[in-house]
Amino acid sequence: MKVKLAKSFGFCFGVKRAIKIAQKGQDGVTLGELIHNQKEIDRLKQGYGVRLAKSIDEICKGDHVIVRTHGIPKDELKKLEDMEVEISDATCPYVTKPQKIVEQVSAEGYQVVIFGDIAHPEVKSVMSYSHTQAWVVKDLEELKQYKIPKKTALVSQTTKQTKQFYELAQYLLTHSYETRVFNTICNATFQNQDSAKELAKEVDIMIVVGGLTSSNTKQLFEIAKRHCADSYLIEDENGLELQWFEGKKICGITAGASTPDWIIQKVKQKIQEI
Amino acid sequence: MKVKLAKSFGFCFGVKRAIKIAQKGQDGVTLGELIHNQKEIDRLKQGYGVRLAKSIDEICKGDHVIVRTHGIPKDELKKLEDMEVEISDATCPYVTKPQKIVEQVSAEGYQVVIFGDIAHPEVKSVMSYSHTQAWVVKDLEELKQYKIPKKTALVSQTTKQTKQFYELAQYLLTHSYETRVFNTICNATFQNQDSAKELAKEVDIMIVVGGLTSSNTKQLFEIAKRHCADSYLIEDENGLELQWFEGKKICGITAGASTPDWIIQKVKQKIQEI
Repeated sequence: MKVKLAKSFGFCFGVKRAIKIAQKGQDGVTLGELIHNQKEIDRLKQGYGVRLAKSIDEICKGDHVIVRTHGIPKDELKKLEDMEVEISDATCPYVTKPQKIVEQVSAEGYQVVIFGDIAHPEVKSVMSYSHTQAWVVKDLEELKQYKIPKKTALVSQTTKQTKQFYELAQYLLTHSYETRVFNTICNATFQNQDSAKELAKEVDIMIVVGGLTSSNTKQLFEIAKRHCADSYLIEDENGLELQWFEGKKICGITAGASTPDWIIQKVKQKIQEI
Repeated sequence: MKVKLAKSFGFCFGVKRAIKIAQKGQDGVTLGELIHNQKEIDRLKQGYGVRLAKSIDEICKGDHVIVRTHGIPKDELKKLEDMEVEISDATCPYVTKPQKIVEQVSAEGYQVVIFGDIAHPEVKSVMSYSHTQAWVVKDLEELKQYKIPKKTALVSQTTKQTKQFYELAQYLLTHSYETRVFNTICNATFQNQDSAKELAKEVDIMIVVGGLTSSNTKQLFEIAKRHCADSYLIEDENGLELQWFEGKKICGITAGASTPDWIIQKVKQKIQEI
């Protein structure tokens, strides 16, 4: 069976980068979960001795600490820097960017507004860089509770929807004298979806690899089905069924944002052997 | 007859300030028309010897030069500064603001976008402060002709409508990584309109003073008529007719943005004497 991978699928740039960093030094310790994927965390533990510290108290002198993709609060990074530990920063560059923006614009007197979920580690890390109290809002209704000052600056959690982000921007600029809008949304998820759609149109059968409970994987599966009737969702290569491929010539593969590449590769190999 | 003036009417803050400056020093010379009102320019000439220079070539050593409310291009100001002349800057502070913004953000690498009329002296002065070529757009269609770069900054001609300004802002922020929006619109015109509406509701007769061809005066007259059936538009006190006031107790007065206060005062006095 001929196999074609989607142009964009699976782990995003930041997650791939973090895993590379974690694999480089043996026996590292991540402060918080490196990425949001248990299977991959287990693999890093078994293969590379990477352990998980749930708080900074579990970090010891001499440790090789890996900062998670979502970043950590500024004061925790400061604490680590004051300890005798080696630090590898696996913070996604798309998260480092809003951290720096927030640090700069808050120093320049702008009220920082972060579009995001206050409980998310990424938002916690970004807001910690503000010199003044940042506002974290999950929607327009929350923003409307605030009295908008003369100078405001808006950033977003990387995984938020652009449509809502623009709504917040519009509200701010109609209520501020000066508004700075930084579109810090990362479109990796949308790229995966666009690529799945394109690929589904040109193949006989589509295989979507990902957790059955993963929201973004389900979204990919829905998109694939819409453009290729013979689409199937599997967790790993063990989910494949031979009869699906009868009479088919070309098979497309895509994968959710939380699906490690090694699982995708096993699926690809098994299909090629059909 | 009892008379009540609108809360906001006639000349705006910037025009009033410019006239005060022109009256301070005798025999000044304005580079371009100080304000857009011929009667007032004539009055300043007759009463204070203020003459008009159409270009910088008409300025002589030792002159007292008054910079017009709309501002002048940066290189002309520089030329004046290099000449042995005394300079009084009557540029409206609401115009100085966008000049400074454009100067700063263009130096910081933002593409400057000015919402305005490229032929207007205010826009010519503001755009001259940009270190890089500013884009002047009169509407969204014009903005769409450009390839939007990563960093943009938007300012407005002070007399533009906010609704269109927000449309441009929205377009920029959906096409840039970072957008800086400076709402440099001055709401003096809208304040005159709001005040005319409020006053018209509570009086028996409304007198609108202003040039018969003045667009904003006509707008004021339309608004007054809508809320007070007995509304009249006059150029000066000679336009008043006694029979309008029969059976009326309270008269409201408003005036267009280009109507000098001394004309309004004459109108007020004549009505009070009825």
